Amino acid sequence: MATKIITISREFGSGGRTIGRQVAEALGIPFYDKELVEQVALESGFAPDFVAENAEHSPSANRFAYAFSQQAVPGAFNGMSTADILWSIQCSVIQQLAEKGPCVIVGRNADYILKDRTDVLNVYIHAPIEQRAERIVRLYGESEKKPEARLNEKDKRRRINYQHYTGRTWGAPQNYALCLDSGALSIEKCVELIVSASK
Amino acid sequence: MATKIITISREFGSGGRTIGRQVAEALGIPFYDKELVEQVALESGFAPDFVAENAEHSPSANRFAYAFSQQAVPGAFNGMSTADILWSIQCSVIQQLAEKGPCVIVGRNADYILKDRTDVLNVYIHAPIEQRAERIVRLYGESEKKPEARLNEKDKRRRINYQHYTGRTWGAPQNYALCLDSGALSIEKCVELIVSASK
Repeated sequence: MATKIITISREFGSGGRTIGRQVAEALGIPFYDKELVEQVALESGFAPDFVAENAEHSPSANRFAYAFSQQAVPGAFNGMSTADILWSIQCSVIQQLAEKGPCVIVGRNADYILKDRTDVLNVYIHAPIEQRAERIVRLYGESEKKPEARLNEKDKRRRINYQHYTGRTWGAPQNYALCLDSGALSIEKCVELIVSASK
Repeated sequence: MATKIITISREFGSGGRTIGRQVAEALGIPFYDKELVEQVALESGFAPDFVAENAEHSPSANRFAYAFSQQAVPGAFNGMSTADILWSIQCSVIQQLAEKGPCVIVGRNADYILKDRTDVLNVYIHAPIEQRAERIVRLYGESEKKPEARLNEKDKRRRINYQHYTGRTWGAPQNYALCLDSGALSIEKCVELIVSASK
Protein backbone atom coordinates (compact mmCIF):
# COMPACT_ATOMS: atom_id res chain seq x y z
CA MET A 1 0.00 0.00 0.00
CA ALA A 2 1.52 3.30 -1.06
CA THR A 3 0.05 5.40 1.70
CA LYS A 4 0.73 9.07 1.73
CA ILE A 5 -1.72 10.29 4.34
CA ILE A 6 -2.44 8.73 7.73
CA THR A 7 -5.51 9.76 9.72
CA ILE A 8 -5.77 8.88 13.39
CA SER A 9 -9.04 8.84 15.31
CA ARG A 10 -8.79 8.02 18.98
CA GLU A 11 -10.58 7.55 22.25
CA PHE A 12 -9.65 10.24 24.76
CA GLY A 13 -6.68 9.13 26.83
CA SER A 14 -5.66 6.30 24.51
CA GLY A 15 -2.42 7.99 23.49
CA GLY A 16 -3.57 8.41 19.88
CA ARG A 17 -2.11 11.91 19.58
CA THR A 18 1.27 10.78 20.91
CA ILE A 19 1.20 7.79 18.56
CA GLY A 20 0.38 10.08 15.64
CA ARG A 21 3.27 12.42 16.45
CA GLN A 22 5.72 9.54 16.73
CA VAL A 23 4.50 7.98 13.45
CA ALA A 24 5.04 11.32 11.70
CA GLU A 25 8.54 11.58 13.20
CA ALA A 26 9.39 8.01 12.18
CA LEU A 27 8.24 8.65 8.60
CA GLY A 28 9.66 12.18 8.45
CA ILE A 29 6.34 13.73 7.43
CA PRO A 30 4.29 16.64 8.88
CA PHE A 31 2.00 16.10 11.86
CA TYR A 32 -1.31 17.96 12.11
CA ASP A 33 -3.48 17.70 15.18
CA LYS A 34 -6.85 19.24 15.91
CA GLU A 35 -5.41 22.41 17.38
CA LEU A 36 -3.15 22.99 14.41
CA VAL A 37 -5.95 22.47 11.92
CA GLU A 38 -8.18 24.85 13.88
CA GLN A 39 -5.39 27.39 14.06
CA VAL A 40 -4.72 27.16 10.34
CA ALA A 41 -8.40 27.62 9.63
CA LEU A 42 -8.75 30.59 11.94
CA GLU A 43 -5.47 32.31 11.18
CA SER A 44 -5.51 31.82 7.45
CA GLY A 45 -7.88 34.72 7.03
CA PHE A 46 -9.69 32.88 4.28
CA ALA A 47 -11.68 35.23 2.14
CA PRO A 48 -15.31 34.11 2.22
CA ASP A 49 -15.32 33.56 -1.53
CA PHE A 50 -12.23 31.40 -1.26
CA VAL A 51 -13.77 29.28 1.46
CA ALA A 52 -17.03 28.96 -0.42
CA GLU A 53 -15.13 27.90 -3.52
CA ASN A 54 -12.99 25.38 -1.67
CA ALA A 55 -15.61 23.88 0.57
CA GLU A 56 -17.47 22.03 -2.13
CA HIS A 57 -16.35 18.62 -0.92
CA SER A 58 -17.46 19.18 2.64
CA PRO A 59 -20.68 17.63 3.99
CA SER A 60 -22.37 20.96 4.48
CA ALA A 61 -20.90 22.49 1.34
CA ASN A 62 -24.13 23.70 -0.13
CA ARG A 63 -25.41 25.35 3.00
CA PHE A 64 -22.01 26.79 3.61
CA ALA A 65 -21.53 28.18 0.15
CA TYR A 66 -25.04 29.56 0.32
CA ALA A 67 -24.42 31.26 3.66
CA PHE A 68 -21.28 32.92 2.41
CA SER A 69 -22.82 33.92 -0.88
CA GLN A 70 -25.50 35.70 1.13
CA GLN A 71 -23.07 37.44 3.42
CA ALA A 72 -24.09 40.97 2.46
CA VAL A 73 -27.55 40.23 3.75
CA PRO A 74 -27.87 40.82 7.51
CA GLY A 75 -28.63 37.59 9.38
CA ALA A 76 -27.41 35.37 6.55
CA PHE A 77 -25.59 33.12 9.04
CA ASN A 78 -28.79 32.32 10.87
CA GLY A 79 -29.19 28.59 10.94
CA MET A 80 -25.47 27.86 10.74
CA SER A 81 -23.78 27.25 14.04
CA THR A 82 -20.21 28.30 14.70
CA ALA A 83 -19.38 24.61 14.80
CA ASP A 84 -20.83 24.14 11.32
CA ILE A 85 -18.86 27.08 9.94
CA LEU A 86 -15.64 25.85 11.54
CA TRP A 87 -16.33 22.33 10.29
CA SER A 88 -16.66 23.54 6.74
CA ILE A 89 -13.46 25.57 6.94
CA GLN A 90 -11.66 22.60 8.45
CA CYS A 91 -12.87 20.28 5.70
CA SER A 92 -11.29 22.63 3.24
CA VAL A 93 -8.08 22.98 5.28
CA ILE A 94 -7.71 19.21 5.68
CA GLN A 95 -8.26 18.59 2.00
CA GLN A 96 -5.62 21.15 1.18
CA LEU A 97 -3.14 19.74 3.71
CA ALA A 98 -3.66 16.31 2.12
CA GLU A 99 -3.04 17.80 -1.30
CA LYS A 100 0.31 19.12 -0.11
CA GLY A 101 1.69 15.61 0.40
CA PRO A 102 2.22 12.83 2.94
CA CYS A 103 1.26 13.71 6.53
CA VAL A 104 -0.37 12.47 9.73
CA ILE A 105 -3.67 14.09 10.73
CA VAL A 106 -5.11 13.42 14.20
CA GLY A 107 -8.81 13.95 14.89
CA ARG A 108 -11.24 16.23 13.06
CA ASN A 109 -13.00 13.30 11.33
CA ALA A 110 -10.26 13.42 8.70
CA ASP A 111 -10.98 9.79 7.70
CA TYR A 112 -14.39 10.89 6.46
CA ILE A 113 -13.25 14.20 4.98
CA LEU A 114 -10.65 12.38 2.87
CA LYS A 115 -12.84 9.38 2.01
CA ASP A 116 -12.66 9.98 -1.73
CA ARG A 117 -8.87 9.71 -1.81
CA THR A 118 -7.21 6.34 -2.38
CA ASP A 119 -3.92 7.14 -0.66
CA VAL A 120 -5.19 7.34 2.92
CA LEU A 121 -4.59 4.91 5.79
CA ASN A 122 -7.28 5.32 8.47
CA VAL A 123 -6.37 4.29 12.01
CA TYR A 124 -8.43 4.14 15.22
CA ILE A 125 -6.73 3.96 18.63
CA HIS A 126 -8.58 2.75 21.72
CA ALA A 127 -7.67 1.38 25.14
CA PRO A 128 -9.39 -0.05 28.22
CA ILE A 129 -10.95 2.66 30.36
CA GLU A 130 -8.74 1.96 33.41
CA GLN A 131 -5.59 2.57 31.39
CA ARG A 132 -7.03 5.72 29.82
CA ALA A 133 -8.09 7.02 33.24
CA GLU A 134 -4.59 6.48 34.58
CA ARG A 135 -3.12 8.23 31.54
CA ILE A 136 -5.24 11.39 31.68
CA VAL A 137 -4.60 11.87 35.38
CA ARG A 138 -0.86 11.43 34.76
CA LEU A 139 -0.83 13.82 31.78
CA TYR A 140 -3.50 16.38 32.60
CA GLY A 141 -3.74 16.08 36.38
CA GLU A 142 -6.72 15.55 38.64
CA SER A 143 -9.91 17.59 38.31
CA GLU A 144 -13.18 17.85 40.17
CA LYS A 145 -14.69 15.17 37.97
CA LYS A 146 -13.64 11.58 38.22
CA PRO A 147 -11.39 10.51 35.31
CA GLU A 148 -13.99 8.00 34.06
CA ALA A 149 -16.59 10.77 33.83
CA ARG A 150 -14.13 13.00 31.93
CA LEU A 151 -13.39 10.17 29.50
CA ASN A 152 -17.04 9.34 28.91
CA GLU A 153 -17.95 12.99 28.37
CA LYS A 154 -15.16 13.63 25.86
CA ASP A 155 -15.77 10.37 23.98
CA LYS A 156 -19.48 11.11 23.88
CA ARG A 157 -18.78 14.51 22.33
CA ARG A 158 -16.47 12.94 19.73
CA ARG A 159 -19.01 10.22 18.96
CA ILE A 160 -21.87 12.68 18.49
CA ASN A 161 -19.73 15.03 16.41
CA TYR A 162 -18.62 12.17 14.13
CA GLN A 163 -22.15 10.84 13.76
CA HIS A 164 -23.50 14.34 13.08
CA TYR A 165 -21.05 15.27 10.37
CA THR A 166 -20.41 11.89 8.74
CA GLY A 167 -23.55 9.80 9.30
CA ARG A 168 -21.24 6.95 10.33
CA THR A 169 -20.67 5.21 13.64
CA TRP A 170 -17.57 6.40 15.47
CA GLY A 171 -15.14 3.57 16.14
CA ALA A 172 -16.82 1.02 13.85
CA PRO A 173 -13.90 -1.02 12.46
CA GLN A 174 -15.32 -0.81 8.92
CA ASN A 175 -14.21 2.85 8.80
CA TYR A 176 -10.55 2.08 9.50
CA ALA A 177 -7.77 -0.04 8.01
CA LEU A 178 -6.39 -0.57 11.53
CA CYS A 179 -7.97 -0.38 14.97
CA LEU A 180 -5.37 -0.80 17.70
CA ASP A 181 -5.66 -1.26 21.45
CA SER A 182 -2.79 0.84 22.79
CA GLY A 183 -3.31 -0.68 26.23
CA ALA A 184 -2.80 -4.24 25.03
CA LEU A 185 -0.08 -3.39 22.51
CA SER A 186 1.80 -0.36 24.01
CA ILE A 187 2.32 3.05 22.42
CA GLU A 188 5.62 1.95 20.85
CA LYS A 189 4.11 -1.15 19.24
CA CYS A 190 1.22 0.89 17.81
CA VAL A 191 3.72 3.29 16.22
CA GLU A 192 5.67 0.38 14.74
CA LEU A 193 2.51 -1.27 13.33
CA ILE A 194 1.18 1.93 11.75
CA VAL A 195 4.54 2.71 10.17
CA SER A 196 4.69 -0.86 8.82
CA ALA A 197 1.10 -0.68 7.53
CA SER A 198 1.84 2.54 5.67
CA LYS A 199 4.60 0.97 3.60
CA MET B 1 3.96 -8.25 24.62
CA ALA B 2 4.83 -11.89 25.17
CA THR B 3 1.92 -13.38 23.29
CA LYS B 4 1.55 -17.11 23.19
CA ILE B 5 -1.95 -17.50 21.81
CA ILE B 6 -3.50 -15.62 18.90
CA THR B 7 -7.25 -15.71 18.32
CA ILE B 8 -8.67 -14.58 15.00
CA SER B 9 -12.30 -13.59 14.51
CA ARG B 10 -13.31 -12.67 11.00
CA GLU B 11 -16.04 -11.56 8.67
CA PHE B 12 -16.90 -14.27 6.14
CA GLY B 13 -14.80 -13.86 3.01
CA SER B 14 -12.26 -11.51 4.60
CA GLY B 15 -9.44 -14.06 4.36
CA GLY B 16 -9.15 -14.36 8.15
CA ARG B 17 -8.65 -18.12 8.05
CA THR B 18 -5.89 -17.84 5.45
CA ILE B 19 -4.26 -15.08 7.49
CA GLY B 20 -4.44 -17.23 10.61
CA ARG B 21 -2.81 -20.18 8.86
CA GLN B 22 0.00 -18.02 7.51
CA VAL B 23 0.59 -16.38 10.90
CA ALA B 24 0.89 -19.84 12.47
CA GLU B 25 3.33 -20.92 9.75
CA ALA B 26 5.39 -17.76 10.17
CA LEU B 27 5.61 -18.27 13.92
CA GLY B 28 6.01 -22.04 13.71
CA ILE B 29 3.08 -22.74 16.02
CA PRO B 30 -0.05 -24.93 15.63
CA PHE B 31 -3.11 -23.66 13.77
CA TYR B 32 -6.62 -24.57 14.92
CA ASP B 33 -9.66 -23.58 12.90
CA LYS B 34 -13.33 -24.14 13.62
CA GLU B 35 -13.45 -27.49 11.88
CA LEU B 36 -10.45 -28.80 13.76
CA VAL B 37 -11.80 -27.70 17.11
CA GLU B 38 -15.15 -29.32 16.30
CA GLN B 39 -13.40 -32.48 15.22
CA VAL B 40 -11.31 -32.61 18.37
CA ALA B 41 -14.42 -32.14 20.46
CA LEU B 42 -16.38 -34.81 18.64
CA GLU B 43 -13.61 -37.34 18.22
CA SER B 44 -12.11 -37.02 21.64
CA GLY B 45 -14.79 -39.21 23.12
CA PHE B 46 -14.79 -37.14 26.28
CA ALA B 47 -16.29 -39.02 29.16
CA PRO B 48 -19.27 -37.03 30.40
CA ASP B 49 -17.71 -36.66 33.82
CA PHE B 50 -14.51 -35.35 32.28
CA VAL B 51 -16.40 -32.79 30.24
CA ALA B 52 -18.51 -31.74 33.20
CA GLU B 53 -15.38 -31.34 35.26
CA ASN B 54 -13.52 -29.37 32.61
CA ALA B 55 -16.32 -27.15 31.43
CA GLU B 56 -16.51 -25.00 34.52
CA HIS B 57 -15.16 -21.94 32.76
CA SER B 58 -17.64 -22.07 29.91
CA PRO B 59 -20.60 -19.67 29.78
CA SER B 60 -23.15 -22.44 30.17
CA ALA B 61 -21.01 -24.43 32.58
CA ASN B 62 -23.64 -24.92 35.22
CA ARG B 63 -26.37 -26.02 32.89
CA PHE B 64 -23.91 -28.26 31.09
CA ALA B 65 -22.54 -29.89 34.20
CA TYR B 66 -26.07 -30.34 35.42
CA ALA B 67 -27.21 -31.95 32.17
CA PHE B 68 -24.37 -34.43 32.23
CA SER B 69 -24.75 -35.15 35.88
CA GLN B 70 -28.35 -36.08 35.17
CA GLN B 71 -27.52 -38.26 32.20
CA ALA B 72 -28.95 -41.43 33.64
CA VAL B 73 -32.34 -39.77 33.79
CA PRO B 74 -34.25 -40.01 30.48
CA GLY B 75 -34.82 -36.58 28.98
CA ALA B 76 -32.05 -34.94 30.96
CA PHE B 77 -30.82 -33.09 27.86
CA ASN B 78 -34.17 -31.38 27.37
CA GLY B 79 -33.58 -27.66 27.31
CA MET B 80 -30.01 -27.92 26.02
CA SER B 81 -29.64 -27.58 22.29
CA THR B 82 -27.01 -29.48 20.36
CA ALA B 83 -25.36 -26.13 19.76
CA ASP B 84 -25.18 -25.50 23.51
CA ILE B 85 -23.67 -28.91 24.16
CA LEU B 86 -21.11 -28.47 21.38
CA TRP B 87 -20.32 -24.97 22.61
CA SER B 88 -19.56 -26.24 26.07
CA ILE B 89 -17.33 -29.01 24.79
CA GLN B 90 -15.54 -26.53 22.54
CA CYS B 91 -14.94 -24.14 25.41
CA SER B 92 -13.21 -26.94 27.19
CA VAL B 93 -11.25 -28.00 24.10
CA ILE B 94 -10.09 -24.44 23.38
CA GLN B 95 -9.00 -23.91 26.96
CA GLN B 96 -7.00 -27.12 26.81
CA LEU B 97 -5.43 -26.26 23.45
CA ALA B 98 -4.38 -22.91 24.93
CA GLU B 99 -2.88 -24.70 27.92
CA LYS B 100 -0.72 -26.79 25.59
CA GLY B 101 1.21 -23.74 24.38
CA PRO B 102 1.42 -21.05 21.69
CA CYS B 103 -1.06 -21.45 18.81
CA VAL B 104 -3.44 -19.64 16.45
CA ILE B 105 -7.16 -20.30 16.90
CA VAL B 106 -9.60 -19.08 14.25
CA GLY B 107 -13.27 -18.60 15.05
CA ARG B 108 -15.32 -20.24 17.81
CA ASN B 109 -15.43 -17.07 19.92
CA ALA B 110 -12.01 -18.04 21.29
CA ASP B 111 -11.31 -14.41 22.30
CA TYR B 112 -14.13 -14.66 24.83
CA ILE B 113 -13.41 -18.22 25.91
CA LEU B 114 -9.81 -17.26 26.75
CA LYS B 115 -10.64 -13.84 28.22
CA ASP B 116 -9.19 -14.68 31.63
CA ARG B 117 -5.72 -15.42 30.23
CA THR B 118 -3.16 -12.63 29.92
CA ASP B 119 -1.12 -14.18 27.09
CA VAL B 120 -3.69 -13.82 24.31
CA LEU B 121 -3.65 -11.49 21.31
CA ASN B 122 -7.17 -11.03 19.93
CA VAL B 123 -7.49 -10.08 16.26
CA TYR B 124 -10.52 -9.22 14.11
CA ILE B 125 -10.30 -9.30 10.30
CA HIS B 126 -12.81 -7.48 8.12
CA ALA B 127 -12.99 -6.21 4.54
CA PRO B 128 -15.34 -4.23 2.31
CA ILE B 129 -18.27 -6.31 1.10
CA GLU B 130 -17.33 -6.04 -2.59
CA GLN B 131 -13.92 -7.57 -1.94
CA ARG B 132 -15.40 -10.30 0.23
CA ALA B 133 -18.01 -11.10 -2.42
CA GLU B 134 -15.31 -11.42 -5.05
CA ARG B 135 -13.26 -13.65 -2.75
CA ILE B 136 -16.01 -16.15 -1.86
CA VAL B 137 -17.03 -16.56 -5.49
CA ARG B 138 -13.37 -17.15 -6.41
CA LEU B 139 -12.78 -19.63 -3.57
CA TYR B 140 -16.13 -21.35 -3.14
CA GLY B 141 -17.75 -20.83 -6.53
CA GLU B 142 -21.12 -19.41 -7.49
CA SER B 143 -24.32 -20.55 -5.82
CA GLU B 144 -28.02 -19.85 -6.23
CA LYS B 145 -27.80 -17.01 -3.75
CA LYS B 146 -26.03 -13.79 -4.58
CA PRO B 147 -22.64 -13.49 -2.85
CA GLU B 148 -23.79 -10.46 -0.83
CA ALA B 149 -26.72 -12.48 0.55
CA ARG B 150 -24.39 -15.36 1.47
CA LEU B 151 -22.05 -12.94 3.25
CA ASN B 152 -24.83 -11.25 5.17
CA GLU B 153 -26.37 -14.56 6.21
CA LYS B 154 -23.09 -16.03 7.46
CA ASP B 155 -22.04 -12.85 9.25
CA LYS B 156 -25.47 -12.59 10.83
CA ARG B 157 -25.11 -16.13 12.16
CA ARG B 158 -21.66 -15.38 13.56
CA ARG B 159 -22.89 -12.12 15.11
CA ILE B 160 -25.87 -13.77 16.78
CA ASN B 161 -23.79 -16.71 17.98
CA TYR B 162 -21.17 -14.38 19.48
CA GLN B 163 -23.80 -12.19 21.14
CA HIS B 164 -25.65 -15.24 22.47
CA TYR B 165 -22.66 -16.94 24.05
CA THR B 166 -20.60 -13.93 25.13
CA GLY B 167 -23.04 -11.06 25.71
CA ARG B 168 -20.64 -8.87 23.72
CA THR B 169 -20.98 -7.13 20.37
CA TRP B 170 -19.25 -9.00 17.54
CA GLY B 171 -16.64 -6.86 15.83
CA ALA B 172 -16.58 -4.09 18.47
CA PRO B 173 -12.92 -2.96 18.49
CA GLN B 174 -12.85 -2.99 22.31
CA ASN B 175 -12.77 -6.81 22.18
CA TYR B 176 -9.61 -6.99 20.08
CA ALA B 177 -6.02 -5.76 20.25
CA LEU B 178 -6.04 -5.41 16.46
CA CYS B 179 -8.83 -4.99 13.91
CA LEU B 180 -7.49 -5.12 10.38
CA ASP B 181 -9.09 -4.40 7.00
CA SER B 182 -7.62 -7.11 4.77
CA GLY B 183 -9.03 -5.31 1.73
CA ALA B 184 -7.18 -2.08 2.44
CA LEU B 185 -4.02 -3.74 3.74
CA SER B 186 -3.74 -7.07 1.80
CA ILE B 187 -3.55 -10.58 3.25
CA GLU B 188 0.27 -10.48 3.35
CA LYS B 189 0.37 -7.18 5.24
CA CYS B 190 -2.16 -8.47 7.80
CA VAL B 191 0.04 -11.51 8.41
CA GLU B 192 3.10 -9.28 8.85
CA LEU B 193 1.30 -6.96 11.28
CA ILE B 194 -0.09 -9.78 13.43
CA VAL B 195 3.29 -11.49 13.61
CA SER B 196 4.86 -8.17 14.60
CA ALA B 197 2.16 -7.47 17.20
CA SER B 198 2.70 -10.88 18.78
CA LYS B 199 6.35 -10.19 19.55
